[in-house]
Amino acid sequence: MKLTIGEISDHVGGQVIGDLNCLISGVSEIQDSDVGTITFLSNPLYKKYLSQTKAEAIFVKDKKILNGKNGIIVKNPQLAMAKALELFYPIKNKKPSIHKSSIISSKSSFGNNVHIGAGVVIMDDVKIGDNSIIEANSVISENVLIGSECHLYPNVILYEKTKICNNVIIHSGTVIGSDGFGYVTENTNHYKIPQTGNVIIEDNVEIGSNCSIDSATIGSTVIGESSKIDNLVHIAHNVKIGKSCLITAQVGVSGSTTIGDFCIFGGKVGIAGHLKIGSNSVFAAKSGVTKSLPANKIYAGYPAREINEHNKKQAIINKIEKLYYNQNKFKTNISEK
Amino acid sequence: MKLTIGEISDHVGGQVIGDLNCLISGVSEIQDSDVGTITFLSNPLYKKYLSQTKAEAIFVKDKKILNGKNGIIVKNPQLAMAKALELFYPIKNKKPSIHKSSIISSKSSFGNNVHIGAGVVIMDDVKIGDNSIIEANSVISENVLIGSECHLYPNVILYEKTKICNNVIIHSGTVIGSDGFGYVTENTNHYKIPQTGNVIIEDNVEIGSNCSIDSATIGSTVIGESSKIDNLVHIAHNVKIGKSCLITAQVGVSGSTTIGDFCIFGGKVGIAGHLKIGSNSVFAAKSGVTKSLPANKIYAGYPAREINEHNKKQAIINKIEKLYYNQNKFKTNISEK
Amino acid sequence: MKLTIGEISDHVGGQVIGDLNCLISGVSEIQDSDVGTITFLSNPLYKKYLSQTKAEAIFVKDKKILNGKNGIIVKNPQLAMAKALELFYPIKNKKPSIHKSSIISSKSSFGNNVHIGAGVVIMDDVKIGDNSIIEANSVISENVLIGSECHLYPNVILYEKTKICNNVIIHSGTVIGSDGFGYVTENTNHYKIPQTGNVIIEDNVEIGSNCSIDSATIGSTVIGESSKIDNLVHIAHNVKIGKSCLITAQVGVSGSTTIGDFCIFGGKVGIAGHLKIGSNSVFAAKSGVTKSLPANKIYAGYPAREINEHNKKQAIINKIEKLYYNQNKFKTNISEK
Repeated sequence: MKLTIGEISDHVGGQVIGDLNCLISGVSEIQDSDVGTITFLSNPLYKKYLSQTKAEAIFVKDKKILNGKNGIIVKNPQLAMAKALELFYPIKNKKPSIHKSSIISSKSSFGNNVHIGAGVVIMDDVKIGDNSIIEANSVISENVLIGSECHLYPNVILYEKTKICNNVIIHSGTVIGSDGFGYVTENTNHYKIPQTGNVIIEDNVEIGSNCSIDSATIGSTVIGESSKIDNLVHIAHNVKIGKSCLITAQVGVSGSTTIGDFCIFGGKVGIAGHLKIGSNSVFAAKSGVTKSLPANKIYAGYPAREINEHNKKQAIINKIEKLYYNQNKFKTNISEK
Repeated sequence: MKLTIGEISDHVGGQVIGDLNCLISGVSEIQDSDVGTITFLSNPLYKKYLSQTKAEAIFVKDKKILNGKNGIIVKNPQLAMAKALELFYPIKNKKPSIHKSSIISSKSSFGNNVHIGAGVVIMDDVKIGDNSIIEANSVISENVLIGSECHLYPNVILYEKTKICNNVIIHSGTVIGSDGFGYVTENTNHYKIPQTGNVIIEDNVEIGSNCSIDSATIGSTVIGESSKIDNLVHIAHNVKIGKSCLITAQVGVSGSTTIGDFCIFGGKVGIAGHLKIGSNSVFAAKSGVTKSLPANKIYAGYPAREINEHNKKQAIINKIEKLYYNQNKFKTNISEK
Repeated sequence: MKLTIGEISDHVGGQVIGDLNCLISGVSEIQDSDVGTITFLSNPLYKKYLSQTKAEAIFVKDKKILNGKNGIIVKNPQLAMAKALELFYPIKNKKPSIHKSSIISSKSSFGNNVHIGAGVVIMDDVKIGDNSIIEANSVISENVLIGSECHLYPNVILYEKTKICNNVIIHSGTVIGSDGFGYVTENTNHYKIPQTGNVIIEDNVEIGSNCSIDSATIGSTVIGESSKIDNLVHIAHNVKIGKSCLITAQVGVSGSTTIGDFCIFGGKVGIAGHLKIGSNSVFAAKSGVTKSLPANKIYAGYPAREINEHNKKQAIINKIEKLYYNQNKFKTNISEK
């Protein structure tokens, strides 16, 4: 497929600088660009690749940096790139169909245009909305509700009573609704606390591969609307995650913790149980959160504290070598006095 | 279902304070309680919710805190809550049956009342005991032994020669018996060491979702009786875990390490290989264990040390800012002398 | 099976000391050795087990330590042990066959002697080379290429366009090609960046269980020839890993990072995005890598720095307690002056 710069610009809502009719055959990254493609410049660190780029055109914010090249001026070059990718690589949705090898309870009911892949198992009293896709070998347990426009990749496991709202994407190997890790220890015996609740995944959530999201003991574990979760993330029982959070890979959230809206978690962050994390919090990778924290701040370290405070302490720790030698010198000085 | 406070008290072995015949319709948590339910008070931090609770009755240790409300006096309110949950939400066990879509080797043998779900694959020379449940799309490889009263949720993978004893629960996505990570590096070549052993899971163990427990190189990797493992935990080849340990999410135990009985590991703890960890050890979340450690102590940090020592060091690190500025002042003082 | 010491020595290319015709029935570890077996001594820490070993013969480098026992002198005793394990526990390869319950697109094509297990799903335009094994319930999506001599254990998921070269081993639960974690946030909306690339796994790679390796946004995520990956590892979109790296369990590599050849990562290491890590780098367990790092060095800590520097700082931190008390003493001294 080839498109003119003008056609691409119309799609992303930009303004062409240069040759409107120049043909573009795809999208590439500026540091590794291909002849005949469009690229984008957003991160100033990548400006150095601009002069030698083989790309035919560039999404930019400011026409000055084009330096004679073809360009499309947009408010957000990365967003324009995402939209251009959609144009060149349109999603090939699975066709509506129910594979003959799938095992579907007669007590389940589906909306229109559903795709059920090979080897999928759907148990009693499951409801699936319009246009949803359940790929091969996924297992949907009793009393699960799945909304419309959802996409479950191969091998997703939903335990009973899980509720998936609309337009949710879940990647392979993810398990939703497994028992929370709850025991009452009496003497040396770990008595299992029944995990009687469920998990609710709200609209527009995306969950990566091989995640584990546990059922609530009582009530619901909730992943709020438009939140996005990366791979290998653990969400324990009774956790509530707010709207539009970004949770990167290998994060773990312990039981009964509540997280506000628009929070961002770097990779491998760990959060203790029974905490309240305010909205718009940002956590640096590998932070360890040990207490409830107020909204609208950036945190780092273990125990996690405000990043300015953390950085100040780190800077001083980095100087302690000097401090140590200085003190030894002082000691000598003092002794000599 | 509704039960009287008296009936609930009989079930949990408690003593009723207040109206024996008051009807209860379920269990709720004190900070989020529902009208007509029973709740419990165990953690003193939650005492503040007592006055405004909508619950009809409360499990407590001491009748004084009831303050006129209906209650059931018990030794362990959390345990009573677990037992009340069993009463209100009885486990609906899968019916004994072998799904026609399962693929079962004629060389395997089953006890009575076994449930084999849709799409399950059972290879040669597998034995499964009475009343065990193997849910949809699980794969049981050659020469696996599974005892009685076990429950494998959908999509559990057991490699060949795995031995699962009795009353074991394994959640979805967990892989048991994959090859240990063992190579001999000669020059630049990583030569694979055959992983010829197996994994033994003893009685009453529960394992969460998406865990990886590797086969031993020679002999067996062992998870001891009544130990409980959370989600996304890695147990390497030849690890021996003792009885009644609690291993929370995202912990990793490296090869050939031996862990005693009744040990507790917080989330994301990492343990190096070839170590011996004494019984009754407790590790704070995110500890990194780099050497063998004696029994009956609480550890924290990386490298993990006794928590008192760790906390003392942390407290001083927290003061180093002051230390640093003080020293600069001293320097000035000294210079001025 | 029993073999003479002479036969074993011929297989591993060693030199017998003692009784050539003595029969050996298996391989055991020196600290837990069985009567009639061969063991090995490589790590000097295990020399203490030599005198009481029940093993009949020992692979050693130097005949002096045999002390009258039967032995086989080899350059690398651990490698000899690996080769002896192969001899006593030959790999029972799955027989070439295509299980009747597998769901195979008529648009896919296979080489000779392929094994396709029960419940495997193979979508359109997949190609699989000679002698490859795809075990039960794995799902191979559209346009995947798998080379020859590959072994995919049960329940491996390959997303579309994944390319697996030759002689690759992938363990159960691993997901290859799931969408990279990429969004453009405009105001409060996380706009999904289409992930249009793929994953390439080069020759002789082994990947453990429950790993997640994401597709590139544009282009390919690459795992280089002969690299070995342990369990529960996360590899983000557009990462390039070089040849012969060893990546142990629960490591996470963020998007667009490039790693050289022969790098070694301890457990739970985290690596930030868009970095370049030089060849022959070694990272201690739990390191956090926050910037690009030059080749041929050993790193530790968070932020990761050269291990000598890290250890020096740690040693001083370990002394700060003393430092702190000393300073207080100084203060007193100074005040008293």
